[in-house]
This record gives sequence, structure tokens and C-alpha cells, in this order.
Amino acid sequence: MSEKKIKKSKDRCTLQEILDVIGGKWAMSIIYALFPGKKRFSELERMIPGINTRMLVKELKNMEENQIVTREVFATVPPTVEYTLTEKGKKLEPIINELYKWGVEYVG
Amino acid sequence: MSEKKIKKSKDRCTLQEILDVIGGKWAMSIIYALFPGKKRFSELERMIPGINTRMLVKELKNMEENQIVTREVFATVPPTVEYTLTEKGKKLEPIINELYKWGVEYVG
Repeated sequence: MSEKKIKKSKDRCTLQEILDVIGGKWAMSIIYALFPGKKRFSELERMIPGINTRMLVKELKNMEENQIVTREVFATVPPTVEYTLTEKGKKLEPIINELYKWGVEYVG
Repeated sequence: MSEKKIKKSKDRCTLQEILDVIGGKWAMSIIYALFPGKKRFSELERMIPGINTRMLVKELKNMEENQIVTREVFATVPPTVEYTLTEKGKKLEPIINELYKWGVEYVG
């Protein structure tokens, strides 16, 4: 058996941890929407078809906890909330772009 | 606003379709486990910590429907079932490896 790649428990846990961070139904779509630059909550909501407000709040909170995005609140009326990718989040750009290319070729 | 990357509805649907195929909680772990070559059901179950039989059956069925894996049944007693990545599935190897490297650096 050639199970070398994931024979170590540490390796396996790492992959599972990664998926906890970005493997959710919406996380990659949100990251993808943030590649061009910061976005307001309402912009993200418009950009991601099928997501609802509750899910977007939940995913962004999770991504903030995992240091994928930063959240800035501006004291406008009503308050403006903006999300930006962190360095850690930006490093996903080439990977998600490759995944997207794969999808265009094989799924879309 | 620089929303060019996902402004087209077609693009957005494609990303969502990709995530339907490989964005599940276990799909990438299963694909990762299959990179070195075909595996029996019981081997996959051992290789992926935290997955249960029902979830593995469900994910593999979904992946078979999406032409990510092929399933072969051998008439042994008890029957042996082996899973192999398709060409489409194998193309994910560099992408998932990059994702894994990202995780080791930023998550693990």
C-alpha cells in the first residue's frame, strides 16, 4: 500500500483543519469575491448567488475567526461594514483560480 | 467596483457547481487519499479520520456521479469494492497539494 502521503496522523489532521476553514459551502465563493479588493457586506451578498444573509454572516464570522478576512466597521448611518482578505486569505488566490480553471474544463 | 471576475452569472454558477462537486466536508480528503492509487472501501475508511461508513458511502456515491472516481466491484466473498480517481479527479492533484501546502503554512 502506498499510503505514505497521509499515513501520519498530523498530516491527516492538517487536511481536515484546512477543510474546516475553507471547505464550507460558501467560503471559497466569498474568498473569490474578495480577490479584487475589499467589499461591503451588501456587495458580497449581491455577488454570491444563492447565499442568504444569515449564512453570509455565519461564514464571514468563521472566516474572521480563522484570520482569512478582516472586518472593519464605519460609523456611518446606517453603519458600513467592509471585509478584506488577510495575507493568509490572499495566498489562496492562485489555488482557487486553478480550481476554477479545473471546474471550467471539467464541470462547467 | 472591480467585480469583473464574477460579474457574469455563468462564472458564478460555475464556481458554485465546482463546490457542489468537491466542496463537501469529506470530498477533498477522499480525493487526497486516492492520489497514490486505487483503494478499497475499508482502506479509505481507515485513512480518513473522523469519517463514518454512512458518510463515506454517500460522498463516494456523489463523487462517482460527478465522474471524480470510478467504482469497481469484485466478486470475492465478501465482495471487494475498489475506488480509483478518474482523469478528471487526477487533475485535482496539484491543486489539492497546493492547498495542503497553504494549510501547513497557515493553519497547521
